[in-house]
Amino acid sequence: MDFSHEPHVVDLAERVRTFVDDHVLPAEPILDEQLAATPEEWSFRPIVTELRARARAAGLWNLFLPGAQGAGLTNLQYAPLAEITGWSPRLGPVAFNCAAPDTGNMELLSDFGTPEQKSQWLEPLLEAQMRSAFCMTEPDSPSSDASQISTRIRREGSELVINGRKWWSTGAMNPEAKLLIVMGKTDPEAARHQQQSMVIVPRETPGVRIVRPLTVFGYDDRDHGGHAEIVFDEVRVPAGNLIGGEGAGFAIAQARLGPGRIHHCMRTLGMAERALALAGSRARERSPFGRPLAEQPVIREWIAESRIELESLRLLVLKTAWLMDTVGNRQAMTEIQSIKIAVPRAAQRILDRVIQLFGGAGLSGDHPVAEMFAGARALRLADGPDEVHLSSLGKAELRP
Amino acid sequence: MDFSHEPHVVDLAERVRTFVDDHVLPAEPILDEQLAATPEEWSFRPIVTELRARARAAGLWNLFLPGAQGAGLTNLQYAPLAEITGWSPRLGPVAFNCAAPDTGNMELLSDFGTPEQKSQWLEPLLEAQMRSAFCMTEPDSPSSDASQISTRIRREGSELVINGRKWWSTGAMNPEAKLLIVMGKTDPEAARHQQQSMVIVPRETPGVRIVRPLTVFGYDDRDHGGHAEIVFDEVRVPAGNLIGGEGAGFAIAQARLGPGRIHHCMRTLGMAERALALAGSRARERSPFGRPLAEQPVIREWIAESRIELESLRLLVLKTAWLMDTVGNRQAMTEIQSIKIAVPRAAQRILDRVIQLFGGAGLSGDHPVAEMFAGARALRLADGPDEVHLSSLGKAELRP
Amino acid sequence: MDFSHEPHVVDLAERVRTFVDDHVLPAEPILDEQLAATPEEWSFRPIVTELRARARAAGLWNLFLPGAQGAGLTNLQYAPLAEITGWSPRLGPVAFNCAAPDTGNMELLSDFGTPEQKSQWLEPLLEAQMRSAFCMTEPDSPSSDASQISTRIRREGSELVINGRKWWSTGAMNPEAKLLIVMGKTDPEAARHQQQSMVIVPRETPGVRIVRPLTVFGYDDRDHGGHAEIVFDEVRVPAGNLIGGEGAGFAIAQARLGPGRIHHCMRTLGMAERALALAGSRARERSPFGRPLAEQPVIREWIAESRIELESLRLLVLKTAWLMDTVGNRQAMTEIQSIKIAVPRAAQRILDRVIQLFGGAGLSGDHPVAEMFAGARALRLADGPDEVHLSSLGKAELRP
Amino acid sequence: MDFSHEPHVVDLAERVRTFVDDHVLPAEPILDEQLAATPEEWSFRPIVTELRARARAAGLWNLFLPGAQGAGLTNLQYAPLAEITGWSPRLGPVAFNCAAPDTGNMELLSDFGTPEQKSQWLEPLLEAQMRSAFCMTEPDSPSSDASQISTRIRREGSELVINGRKWWSTGAMNPEAKLLIVMGKTDPEAARHQQQSMVIVPRETPGVRIVRPLTVFGYDDRDHGGHAEIVFDEVRVPAGNLIGGEGAGFAIAQARLGPGRIHHCMRTLGMAERALALAGSRARERSPFGRPLAEQPVIREWIAESRIELESLRLLVLKTAWLMDTVGNRQAMTEIQSIKIAVPRAAQRILDRVIQLFGGAGLSGDHPVAEMFAGARALRLADGPDEVHLSSLGKAELRP
Repeated sequence: MDFSHEPHVVDLAERVRTFVDDHVLPAEPILDEQLAATPEEWSFRPIVTELRARARAAGLWNLFLPGAQGAGLTNLQYAPLAEITGWSPRLGPVAFNCAAPDTGNMELLSDFGTPEQKSQWLEPLLEAQMRSAFCMTEPDSPSSDASQISTRIRREGSELVINGRKWWSTGAMNPEAKLLIVMGKTDPEAARHQQQSMVIVPRETPGVRIVRPLTVFGYDDRDHGGHAEIVFDEVRVPAGNLIGGEGAGFAIAQARLGPGRIHHCMRTLGMAERALALAGSRARERSPFGRPLAEQPVIREWIAESRIELESLRLLVLKTAWLMDTVGNRQAMTEIQSIKIAVPRAAQRILDRVIQLFGGAGLSGDHPVAEMFAGARALRLADGPDEVHLSSLGKAELRP
Repeated sequence: MDFSHEPHVVDLAERVRTFVDDHVLPAEPILDEQLAATPEEWSFRPIVTELRARARAAGLWNLFLPGAQGAGLTNLQYAPLAEITGWSPRLGPVAFNCAAPDTGNMELLSDFGTPEQKSQWLEPLLEAQMRSAFCMTEPDSPSSDASQISTRIRREGSELVINGRKWWSTGAMNPEAKLLIVMGKTDPEAARHQQQSMVIVPRETPGVRIVRPLTVFGYDDRDHGGHAEIVFDEVRVPAGNLIGGEGAGFAIAQARLGPGRIHHCMRTLGMAERALALAGSRARERSPFGRPLAEQPVIREWIAESRIELESLRLLVLKTAWLMDTVGNRQAMTEIQSIKIAVPRAAQRILDRVIQLFGGAGLSGDHPVAEMFAGARALRLADGPDEVHLSSLGKAELRP
Repeated sequence: MDFSHEPHVVDLAERVRTFVDDHVLPAEPILDEQLAATPEEWSFRPIVTELRARARAAGLWNLFLPGAQGAGLTNLQYAPLAEITGWSPRLGPVAFNCAAPDTGNMELLSDFGTPEQKSQWLEPLLEAQMRSAFCMTEPDSPSSDASQISTRIRREGSELVINGRKWWSTGAMNPEAKLLIVMGKTDPEAARHQQQSMVIVPRETPGVRIVRPLTVFGYDDRDHGGHAEIVFDEVRVPAGNLIGGEGAGFAIAQARLGPGRIHHCMRTLGMAERALALAGSRARERSPFGRPLAEQPVIREWIAESRIELESLRLLVLKTAWLMDTVGNRQAMTEIQSIKIAVPRAAQRILDRVIQLFGGAGLSGDHPVAEMFAGARALRLADGPDEVHLSSLGKAELRP
Repeated sequence: MDFSHEPHVVDLAERVRTFVDDHVLPAEPILDEQLAATPEEWSFRPIVTELRARARAAGLWNLFLPGAQGAGLTNLQYAPLAEITGWSPRLGPVAFNCAAPDTGNMELLSDFGTPEQKSQWLEPLLEAQMRSAFCMTEPDSPSSDASQISTRIRREGSELVINGRKWWSTGAMNPEAKLLIVMGKTDPEAARHQQQSMVIVPRETPGVRIVRPLTVFGYDDRDHGGHAEIVFDEVRVPAGNLIGGEGAGFAIAQARLGPGRIHHCMRTLGMAERALALAGSRARERSPFGRPLAEQPVIREWIAESRIELESLRLLVLKTAWLMDTVGNRQAMTEIQSIKIAVPRAAQRILDRVIQLFGGAGLSGDHPVAEMFAGARALRLADGPDEVHLSSLGKAELRP
């Protein structure tokens, strides 16, 4: 047992840290200005493109992707890097081309795509020439229960015809999100987990209608393409757009979720660390009733509790990554569920404390903590609510 | 001891309930439309004016104000009415001319204003011919510690000259908010609680600069005038604009806070009740994995916990109101602090559960629960953070 | 709505308070000595008998029992008295002949007993000439589910023959507990809630075997007769010992539980108040690191949180009592369940904090707080675990 | 980074696991019988001696002690073994001669003792020929503040004379605890952390008076020698009994605490694992309302929450051990404090859930969970309350 990262990972983390400190954090106010200047747009602002160019030039690119097309890192090696990108949720991941949902979509295409699909969609994504969205959740069915998906995909000759309504398609308000990966039922009569298929739908296909943006609390997350409600009305694509064959949708979704969840957790740890760092600065600066917050016992307890939660959960995330690398995602399911439940929840608690420490300023846009809170809160619902995972974990644990 | 409301209060509550059901709740989507149609404006939308006319015609007006100018109700009698208005945080209180911060400002003028001040400012407020804002909190000093207020009010002949920067001036983005009540130091050398004074500043006075709106978790609360940052730069008003005399500012602020806090708590209970009612409907409609949420034990526990918290805290609010009515606000301080701490916190917990029950929809603007969450969270900071009150309460309790 | 107790209740509470201060609290060390002197015995120690004589002489007797045979108080009137008796869990209730399980048994006999049963058993209990136990819970079936009771009562001619095993029969180790009220099934084929009957079994009946005492966190509660496991092996009693007729057992148990639960809650509030008072004294006396605990912010928060919880739950208990008095126990079910869940849990939290404040001393027998903790913890299981009540409460709340 | 234990540690853990399963767990009912048979005694019961002989024969002896005299294991290597011994808190650690406070005393003598002290006291302890106690905490001063220790050690010629009162001297009721290590002040005028010294006091020295046993909740922990209050009244020992020189007491205590705390945490994890295993069995066996507890969602959530807490905290314990091994106890202080706070607290929460799952049986002596709860609760006070550590941790974290 050894708790130290390999030297080359330490080195890489150091480079990511330096890049974030030197380029990403200073870019945050620039992003705010660019957003204020073009309040109606949903596409990436220029600073994003700039950061990406710099990161790529620095050799910090596609870090999330194992294998030759990516940076070739294991989950365990990627973990400390992803955490650092989480310090700036709006700019960090995207700078390194490591932002959801593109990461999940790239993994999916890399693992299950045909050579044609890879060349047409994966390559431009790896080059950051476009963005993508993942269309799974529906307004009229519980997102945790894939068997209730109501979107239908029927085959007509060499075409697939898609009808349905999706929402929470993150990034899809962005016109650069040229690729939509859509899950629907091809055979509602098949076995429960073989009814679903996944299909590539170019955003510009006739019948695709971007209905409206959704908000998370009051945020529209416009900087990274928002969250769209989309109607698919008799949308026709070639049958070759199927990913992994008919009926493979559920299995592909599951495969996509493991890495997706742990990446979310890694970044969330970083976000919480940033919040703690901001809290520390604030606590040293403000002195209500003549004593710095940093010397007030109640504040010290908050910070100590936060530190303990973060340290123990970081270790659980790292162990989960190690298990995924060594015994596989399936064998790591209990741990993946554990972190999916525990990390966003801890982050929410920590951010709630940090907001309280900041006072009114913490609720506003002057500091990133309110928006971080919204992000952590949303993660407790993304990919199914905590309760579905708790129940499944408890069930497994209670097996004789 | 008797836990039933007087018959005429029951009757009045019934009338308020009917009005809310028939007029206020159906007005919510209309407000949304009107907001969408004029995204840049900060003034009241037409539906607000309409609702107010109807409420006034129905004899449901200025319910919060004791005495002849208002509805003549005690705190205890007002409590169930205020709670019902809280079901629609954006429209309920304002419909009955019972919305903060106008209520606090009207009380303040009613209790401490000169006859001239009353005729010039109180009367139009009671008639809903204008709005008002309260300018106390400052970006550069902890809001809980009045001794650190940095706004200065100096006397020059028959004038007062004000310099300072305020924020979280709720309602002040609304151009109809013609009255600003500003707290500043007239004598920084006086005894700790006699340094502050309160002064009437017409919004249009030269030197008053509305700097920008603030957001609460992404919401700009534009429907009721938002939250402004305001700079006062050599702002001159007649000395007669002082309220209650020089050095009376701290005492007036304290007097204003008691009723203000309990009114917030009453409305917050109503908001939480609405959330529970919405949760109930949702729980009966959605059936992930084939079983209505309403039959799932974990959901039942959430609802039961929420019910217990609400019932016990409502009683504490009512008892506090009764104490304010019978022994006075000062003697009810422990109870006022208790509800100020406990009610918003419970509402936050309840809303967090309700959001979780709604899934992604609960984060969006499709249901009012995310915005309600933001409101409850903000209350934990308004008028000083929980911790200041907890500490004061604990100190009193630990006295021999 | 009126939050003040009637003058004669205030007066009575004052008398109970004085009696507790003057007689009961000073008797606690005497009880400890008497227990230490006769470590093997399970009967009441002399101090108990003495206190009872004094309380009776003071006219403070059978306060719990409404009607002519008792003190004639309503639940609401009894509440503040019961709370005060809870300050000394081992001696307060018993001093006034208001201790469980005798109170529940007396109510049961008073409500459902025949004249013969009343004269033989109720009267000596009201005179404190004997004690009693209630034998319902069984080791081999979940206590929350009466349909699983395995004790059988069969009729043979004019006799009832009882076979079964009970435990947690509080008080039954005390040889003075001459009366056992036993619940068993007379007709396992009847409708779910008509299978059970309740029968009077004199402790000395052949076939009754007191197997052993049980402990609660190491406490044997020997001062008030402990908690017994009892085997009933072909125990024969006259058919006239049936209470309320065959098949009435479940209904009687339900009737017994309402008042039983609220009485527990009332006393538990008093216990928690005593703990807070002890915590206050301790906090003023001890000064680790040179500053009295009473001035330490974290301690102040604990005390403030405890105060808020106690105040709000006391009001809920009082309102529940008022509902029981005005609309009946059945209509007050939601509230009875609420306090049954919330009060012991809050008391456990408060006692946990108080123990922590006391340090090691708080775990020991030198202060009553560890034993109080055990008592509060046990109440979360008595009469069915919290979860059963939460589920039932949530179910009711979620009805359309 | 590598989360797997070394092969020889895995092997050793397997052997300890087998020994615990085959010898220790089956010995628990035997211990109960032996305790019941000799209720007045405080010395080890025969089964303890037997188990020790078997463990020693199996080569599983003094596992905690690094270096040649012990098993030569690092903290990280010892961790999984210690955890397994925690499955049986009363018999596991003692079987392998790894029970507190002997372990701490052996470490202390090993690190700071003179050759004479080692040969006279360390060797028989390593051979399990005697027991020992550690006398630090005092009834009249806060245990967390060594500067308030009131025990005095004065030098008279070649002798030291000790006066003071200690309590919570674990094991000291056992007459086999021939060695007492006593902390007192030799120079109250010295610098704050140089006033204290540590001295060896044979239990039979005149002036040593074992006053009484203390209880933890209702447990006297008689099986391992209880917890004693001890008066030292003009107790004289040779000056050679000083450990580590005059004024070294505080530093030695600190050195003793690091390993002591992590060992407690390791064992506590094991205790919680055992509780979860017992909960699992119970949950599969009991079916209130016709459905096994193991299938009830609320129970599943409890178990899932417990699993997540245990997994993440185990990793934090292991990382702490690794830090102690690689960078030293001083550099691992934040982590040692973190686990000292978090592990007992989590264990208390888990045990509270498990008790609730067991129902009344969980409070009794029929299952080990109530006693485990008491043990976990006590750990939150041992070596200073959580709050002292939280404050110190928060302070460190808030440093710029």
